[in-house]
Amino acid sequence: MRNIESPKIGIAGITGRLGSLCAEEAGPHLVGGLSRHADPSRSIVSTPSLLASKCDVIIDVSHASLVTAHAKAFAQAGCAWVLGTTGLDQQAQDAIAEASKKIAILQAANFSPALTMLLDLAQQLAASLPDYDAEILETHHRQKLDAPSGTALAIGRAVANGRQVDFDSVKRLDQNGKRPDGAIGFASLRGGQVIGEHDLRFLTSDEEITLSHKALDRRVFARGALQAAFWLANHKPAGLYTMSDVVKKNTA
Amino acid sequence: MRNIESPKIGIAGITGRLGSLCAEEAGPHLVGGLSRHADPSRSIVSTPSLLASKCDVIIDVSHASLVTAHAKAFAQAGCAWVLGTTGLDQQAQDAIAEASKKIAILQAANFSPALTMLLDLAQQLAASLPDYDAEILETHHRQKLDAPSGTALAIGRAVANGRQVDFDSVKRLDQNGKRPDGAIGFASLRGGQVIGEHDLRFLTSDEEITLSHKALDRRVFARGALQAAFWLANHKPAGLYTMSDVVKKNTA
Amino acid sequence: MRNIESPKIGIAGITGRLGSLCAEEAGPHLVGGLSRHADPSRSIVSTPSLLASKCDVIIDVSHASLVTAHAKAFAQAGCAWVLGTTGLDQQAQDAIAEASKKIAILQAANFSPALTMLLDLAQQLAASLPDYDAEILETHHRQKLDAPSGTALAIGRAVANGRQVDFDSVKRLDQNGKRPDGAIGFASLRGGQVIGEHDLRFLTSDEEITLSHKALDRRVFARGALQAAFWLANHKPAGLYTMSDVVKKNTA
Amino acid sequence: MRNIESPKIGIAGITGRLGSLCAEEAGPHLVGGLSRHADPSRSIVSTPSLLASKCDVIIDVSHASLVTAHAKAFAQAGCAWVLGTTGLDQQAQDAIAEASKKIAILQAANFSPALTMLLDLAQQLAASLPDYDAEILETHHRQKLDAPSGTALAIGRAVANGRQVDFDSVKRLDQNGKRPDGAIGFASLRGGQVIGEHDLRFLTSDEEITLSHKALDRRVFARGALQAAFWLANHKPAGLYTMSDVVKKNTA
Repeated sequence: MRNIESPKIGIAGITGRLGSLCAEEAGPHLVGGLSRHADPSRSIVSTPSLLASKCDVIIDVSHASLVTAHAKAFAQAGCAWVLGTTGLDQQAQDAIAEASKKIAILQAANFSPALTMLLDLAQQLAASLPDYDAEILETHHRQKLDAPSGTALAIGRAVANGRQVDFDSVKRLDQNGKRPDGAIGFASLRGGQVIGEHDLRFLTSDEEITLSHKALDRRVFARGALQAAFWLANHKPAGLYTMSDVVKKNTA
Repeated sequence: MRNIESPKIGIAGITGRLGSLCAEEAGPHLVGGLSRHADPSRSIVSTPSLLASKCDVIIDVSHASLVTAHAKAFAQAGCAWVLGTTGLDQQAQDAIAEASKKIAILQAANFSPALTMLLDLAQQLAASLPDYDAEILETHHRQKLDAPSGTALAIGRAVANGRQVDFDSVKRLDQNGKRPDGAIGFASLRGGQVIGEHDLRFLTSDEEITLSHKALDRRVFARGALQAAFWLANHKPAGLYTMSDVVKKNTA
Repeated sequence: MRNIESPKIGIAGITGRLGSLCAEEAGPHLVGGLSRHADPSRSIVSTPSLLASKCDVIIDVSHASLVTAHAKAFAQAGCAWVLGTTGLDQQAQDAIAEASKKIAILQAANFSPALTMLLDLAQQLAASLPDYDAEILETHHRQKLDAPSGTALAIGRAVANGRQVDFDSVKRLDQNGKRPDGAIGFASLRGGQVIGEHDLRFLTSDEEITLSHKALDRRVFARGALQAAFWLANHKPAGLYTMSDVVKKNTA
Repeated sequence: MRNIESPKIGIAGITGRLGSLCAEEAGPHLVGGLSRHADPSRSIVSTPSLLASKCDVIIDVSHASLVTAHAKAFAQAGCAWVLGTTGLDQQAQDAIAEASKKIAILQAANFSPALTMLLDLAQQLAASLPDYDAEILETHHRQKLDAPSGTALAIGRAVANGRQVDFDSVKRLDQNGKRPDGAIGFASLRGGQVIGEHDLRFLTSDEEITLSHKALDRRVFARGALQAAFWLANHKPAGLYTMSDVVKKNTA
């Protein structure tokens, strides 16, 4: 196993917004990047196997369409893979499962440590307070096109998992009409340059408990990706991991 | 003019939820009520003029369909009128305007002192921070049928008034798609037994300012109606007043 | 073991505010109470063993000075014991430990299900986000004499436990001066008739996560005590339990 | 009168944190700065009259000890003066009053438009809701030395003004003990890199209304100072103005 102190890190999707931030955060650990357009002056290549041959771990924030090819190349090179790309189809998921027999892979929709914890705590609260109404509010900047946010839906899924019910049967995107028992409601606000705020509120007639998260700087996602890369590069056997494995400490 | 210390108060709609609370709050000042079914044992009559002849002021939380008849009866009796009924048509509004030439009338959609202030401050903020995004969130109990709440829409209208724009052109009930300049967004949550929470948030990239109101006890509406009745009963010439006239103190 | 469907419940401290609410919530399950002044018309006795002989479980919200005597009487009678009295000295704690060899005892400073969860989640967050600043805000009614609240301190202790540090070394009640690393800050607001609000906020430069609890009705404590009594009465072997054992569902 | 479109702006204290931001925001309108150490390459002089002779308006974020000298120099040059320096003694205030007979001066402790509004609305709420408990919470980064913040105290003074009571008699910095009638309570949290959050909450048993402000970017203070400079440079006769004159639009 390699030394945790200085893993060699590569970034797939290095020219994107999150990729650029990851490169900055990687600092001296960065050995190169992957992009459609190679740029030798910045150690950016366009061939996955070329990058993988130089790295202990690759942070991949490129695009869903590239995942299957990456899976093969990184597995063959024995390079650990932190995968943050979303919107994957079944073929891509199968390729990930196959690769995870040979390399350590961490797949996460979101690298924020606190949001990772929120998803975990949401499931616990939902399981322990089964009769409380669950409502999710998300706030983002004005340019955001979709609502509710992917993270809000992920929180809703965590609640449904905690209650062992089917998410699609209980989610409630429309606020009109009496709310049925067990519904999970969603609401969205838009304004300013809000990076992302999510509130999960459990209500009953007697009491309320709310979990709130605010992303204040997009670097939180890059820093979390680096934290994941260090964790994965060090001593991890082949397999499929989640951000929760990195962040969650057992307090039992 | 009569003595402010002990106005004789009647309640139209005394058997409804808010009417009952008003009766309790009126205490020794209560001289009778108006309802479809007269109940002499509780001084409840079914004829508006009969109640008006005994009162200095009537708090009317009955029904929109009765407003025109009440206007005539109360004006003829010279009895001041605190009117909290909503959903009035043009005929009713005309009857109110006509009656206000003879008696003092206070018309309000909401008797909460703090909400009255919120509507006023919302307009000021909207006028003074014209380029800030305005978003309104309301939370109510699970049984509420409509969304957004009437109060949320009233807050939105106050914002539009402050900006001298047409409310219907800028209101945005659907959260999908990029938010256009000057839009006023709405979102709703439902859960528990929440009586009513309203948040008005003004956002820009640099700063945010939020006005939040929580109704904790339905009595706040009854107490505000009584405050209005005392205010109106004492020294008020004929005319049409608002809750803002009761609550807002000039601090200039 | 007795049937969970209808345990016989007694209340020690039945004439106090929380005791009265517990009695109301117990409904048909209530078989009697314990108080300094016996009142046979309401099945209230003044001798612990007399009440214990009739009950499956006793909810004890009396006074710290009575705990040692209760421990002996309830253990001898084989009656389960839900103990909500706080401010116990070492002698009382020893008596509880001794009694727990013979009967099932649930000891809790607070019976709210959501607050029980908050304490648990606070510890998890503190362990998983070790470098985040932790700050606790509590809000209560104007008449409250002490600050911060006992619950706020309990939340602080949970954070310190999660970080495996000594609470007294890191708690920070005074807000003046630069905050040292690892400090747990406290702040208090007072106003209105707020039953109890607690916010635990974890902050870093990149993101924030907040856990908030609001008690809306004092009945939440009585209902939680009843939930504990039903849980304890049914199938529980001798031992010392906490409210977390009742509420927390394993979601692993 | 000079043309509002392109006032010539100078910055006193240009090398400080806020001064630098003001210089950036001033862009092409910047004609020079004032600092202890002149730097001709950046048009920075060390003599107030020299800067004033070139400017229509000077934004002064230097130091309290320089205010008296600036007052004389700027008044003599006929240059408008936006003064954001705090902690002034009586001599400085007298010099400002004297200078305001000859030039337009805007004095503000804070240039944020929304905070300016908050102070104004705080006074209105305090006047209109005289019996509601008023509580102020402020949150800042961990390095802040003093508590409560100057802005929190300014909000408290606005509340006291609205109620026409002496602020020092009603302010309550310590949270222990029962809160007396009419008290204004303060609480502080510290953590992360929070630039500044202020909440003013009015509570009664029935309802609550809260005004909240969050500074998200320090540029808000620079942008407000520029807004003040443009406003003052254009058409303003000699006199003493406040940020409220710039921001507050009459909605009556």
